[in-house]
Amino acid sequence: MSGEDAPAQQQNAEEQKQQQQQQQETKTPAESPKTESKPDPPPTSASTEAATATATPAPAAEKVPEEDTFTYRALVLTGYGGYDKVKLQVKKGKPALKSGEVMVRVKMCGLNFADLMARQGLYDRLPSPPVTPGMDCSGIIEAVGEDVKDRKVGDNVLVLNRSGLWQEVVVVAATHTFLMPEGMSFEEAAALPVNYITAYMMLFDFGHLRPNQSVLIHMAAGGVGIAATQLCKTVNDVTVFGTASASKHEVISQGGVTHPIDYRTRDYVEEVRKISPKGLDIVLDPLGGSDTHKGYNLLKPMGKLISYGAANMLAGQKKNLFAVAKTWYQQFSVHTLSLIQGNRSVCGFHLGYLDSETELISQAMTVILDLYRQGKIKPRIDSTYHLEQVGDAMRRMQERNNIGKILLSTEPMKEEEKKEEAKKDDKKKDDKKKEDKKEDKKKDEAKKDEKKEEKKEETKKEDKKVDEKKEEAKKEEN
Amino acid sequence: MSGEDAPAQQQNAEEQKQQQQQQQETKTPAESPKTESKPDPPPTSASTEAATATATPAPAAEKVPEEDTFTYRALVLTGYGGYDKVKLQVKKGKPALKSGEVMVRVKMCGLNFADLMARQGLYDRLPSPPVTPGMDCSGIIEAVGEDVKDRKVGDNVLVLNRSGLWQEVVVVAATHTFLMPEGMSFEEAAALPVNYITAYMMLFDFGHLRPNQSVLIHMAAGGVGIAATQLCKTVNDVTVFGTASASKHEVISQGGVTHPIDYRTRDYVEEVRKISPKGLDIVLDPLGGSDTHKGYNLLKPMGKLISYGAANMLAGQKKNLFAVAKTWYQQFSVHTLSLIQGNRSVCGFHLGYLDSETELISQAMTVILDLYRQGKIKPRIDSTYHLEQVGDAMRRMQERNNIGKILLSTEPMKEEEKKEEAKKDDKKKDDKKKEDKKEDKKKDEAKKDEKKEEKKEETKKEDKKVDEKKEEAKKEEN
Repeated sequence: MSGEDAPAQQQNAEEQKQQQQQQQETKTPAESPKTESKPDPPPTSASTEAATATATPAPAAEKVPEEDTFTYRALVLTGYGGYDKVKLQVKKGKPALKSGEVMVRVKMCGLNFADLMARQGLYDRLPSPPVTPGMDCSGIIEAVGEDVKDRKVGDNVLVLNRSGLWQEVVVVAATHTFLMPEGMSFEEAAALPVNYITAYMMLFDFGHLRPNQSVLIHMAAGGVGIAATQLCKTVNDVTVFGTASASKHEVISQGGVTHPIDYRTRDYVEEVRKISPKGLDIVLDPLGGSDTHKGYNLLKPMGKLISYGAANMLAGQKKNLFAVAKTWYQQFSVHTLSLIQGNRSVCGFHLGYLDSETELISQAMTVILDLYRQGKIKPRIDSTYHLEQVGDAMRRMQERNNIGKILLSTEPMKEEEKKEEAKKDDKKKDDKKKEDKKEDKKKDEAKKDEKKEEKKEETKKEDKKVDEKKEEAKKEEN
Repeated sequence: MSGEDAPAQQQNAEEQKQQQQQQQETKTPAESPKTESKPDPPPTSASTEAATATATPAPAAEKVPEEDTFTYRALVLTGYGGYDKVKLQVKKGKPALKSGEVMVRVKMCGLNFADLMARQGLYDRLPSPPVTPGMDCSGIIEAVGEDVKDRKVGDNVLVLNRSGLWQEVVVVAATHTFLMPEGMSFEEAAALPVNYITAYMMLFDFGHLRPNQSVLIHMAAGGVGIAATQLCKTVNDVTVFGTASASKHEVISQGGVTHPIDYRTRDYVEEVRKISPKGLDIVLDPLGGSDTHKGYNLLKPMGKLISYGAANMLAGQKKNLFAVAKTWYQQFSVHTLSLIQGNRSVCGFHLGYLDSETELISQAMTVILDLYRQGKIKPRIDSTYHLEQVGDAMRRMQERNNIGKILLSTEPMKEEEKKEEAKKDDKKKDDKKKEDKKEDKKKDEAKKDEKKEEKKEETKKEDKKVDEKKEEAKKEEN
């Protein structure tokens, strides 16, 4: 198993480093295409192309050119599947900077739900593997391209991009970076872009949230959930219903959720109706499937349902065709005449499909950063992992154990941590076996369910046949 | 033909008056139930129940009680169908006032597109015939019920109601009346409620219209179209695309439409794309059917399509099943995943389904009346008809000849006007015959179209059979 192919979380970082050095010393660029792989097509994504000194002036000729000695670690999705499909690799060669672009030395990266979907091949905005995922990060500007006037080397920035940010060095359009306000940590900066812009545009552009209104926030302890709750609180007397498991209720209540609902033990529709019989003004729906129908039926006149994901499609770490098909099949479809009679609105939002709308995004970001400066919003960090631990980080999100944002730090792991990690790895292998078994069991159950359904259908058909025969018999009698 | 059954526009008003007097003199209330017919069930609609002195204190006993001598003219939809289904009748007996209600002496009534739909039986918010239509009017308060604190006798008001306003006297909830601002005419007041609240809630609640955005307004010379255009102009640098026939372009341009488009000779989708290749922020769609699809496809990211009618269902003065079926069949239906990928919103609006939302409506009305006071909006009156001419008024709207609001005045017709009207009536009878012929021709054409389609299908099927046979022949050869 080479260093490049080993899953990040199962790889001893020290060994890896050695292997990387060997690679750099022995392989020519042509022999190690992966280390120079270009995750996304320019210009909308982080370009990691090795500089070939065409557009940029050639450096002084005496010493070895920096383009050759420049290396950086990057997470790469090598194919669709489980957590082990995201691997830590070393990329070689200094990325070239085009006009309008900046190079950022990354400190912290953000994890988003779309990254989980992408790993299973369920998110079409991530280019095909091998590719570096990652839609938000924070860091320091290390170089600026031509025609970049409002960014300079040394600026602390938060970055929003379609993909490609889970690595130590990224090259992005300067318009995709935003200056960090005074006092903001790199953790907060990496936690902010995707979650707060998503929540902001949904609540204020599509939702047109106003005082005295009511909002339902699913996954209220998740990154978008916490951002949405905080943004609701910037408007007077907004009632927030938030679903989360009971253990998270105290935290989300402190964060601003008026009525936390444990969706695992309660029917949230009933709980909402008890408190707000007329229904809700806004429903934010990241779940899809049958939950979209429920949300729609909870709307008041002039109410808005905003669908922004299909988290119900995720069941287990690998693509579960049964869950995908079920969510797809139950996915909500609405007729304008129904909307007219209910005076309702149904909206769809996903920041990933909005990446060319720089003006819209920068307007939203300006407001969000102002709210941060005023102390009205503050990203909540759930946990920070090393790049090597990306599998653990994704698992934590997928199993909905987080309260707030999960981050990946580009800081290399310390020796003692690595040893700890090695021990955990053994346990993980066992866990993996268990999980595989579990998934197999799930699949078996799904198959059984299908068979049951088939049997039911057959029984129905047989009943029908019997009825038909009876009918015929009657007719003959007459 | 009795005075009650004759169509309003074909009835000589002088004769009618005489007949009415006779009715009042000779018939007992039990014999003329229609004159006391109660158009709508309380409490959401204008109650015209005769006072039976139960809730209100009995007047002085000497003279004939006012309840018996009180009469007023009312338009009544007697059944679904053509223009002649709306008849002018005389109602007898003073309506009783419940707590919270006011009685208004009506000056002007507004015509709305929904009234045309209702006459054909295509609008489920109008109670079954016999019933008095009419959703907006203006007038003077003549009596106030108990617990009405903010209205007094003599107040000039504009009225918004689910139905029942096309008559000389209406009883409505005080919350459905709004004080007319200084300097507003009764014409303007009757032209305002439905059109401006509809346009306002669509543009600012669902649409969240902001500076520099672009809006497509269909039927830009209609009541809602003109209101929407004026409201767009209250926001900086909004680009308005407006469809209307060429003869109306000068007027709508002066009114604020940036790009008038003649939908009869041009493909409006192409015209919009030429000027705004990225598409539009808001599309207001009163048409339904295939136009909703076109509107949806014209949306920018974060764009909103607001559907508020199915005017395409109206073809001819009587219900045209072919047009209804076609519009219904082509009616737009959207999947949330499509909305997510496009970052789009689809909304449905109809004021008729919002009648219990008094707070929302009164908030909107407050802003609208403020804009009127500031001179930023001004209802445009297309024409004013007498109640007797309601058929002509409806025809003008249906044939899209109006620019602005069409009104019905409760002012009785003058003698010379009546004579003119009688002459016109003869012509109208001829026109009606012609129109009936036209409609028959249309139906024939529709049938022919269907047959053509069937023939095509058959030809296709036959072609398919031939192909299948060829396939079989090949297989046999192999």
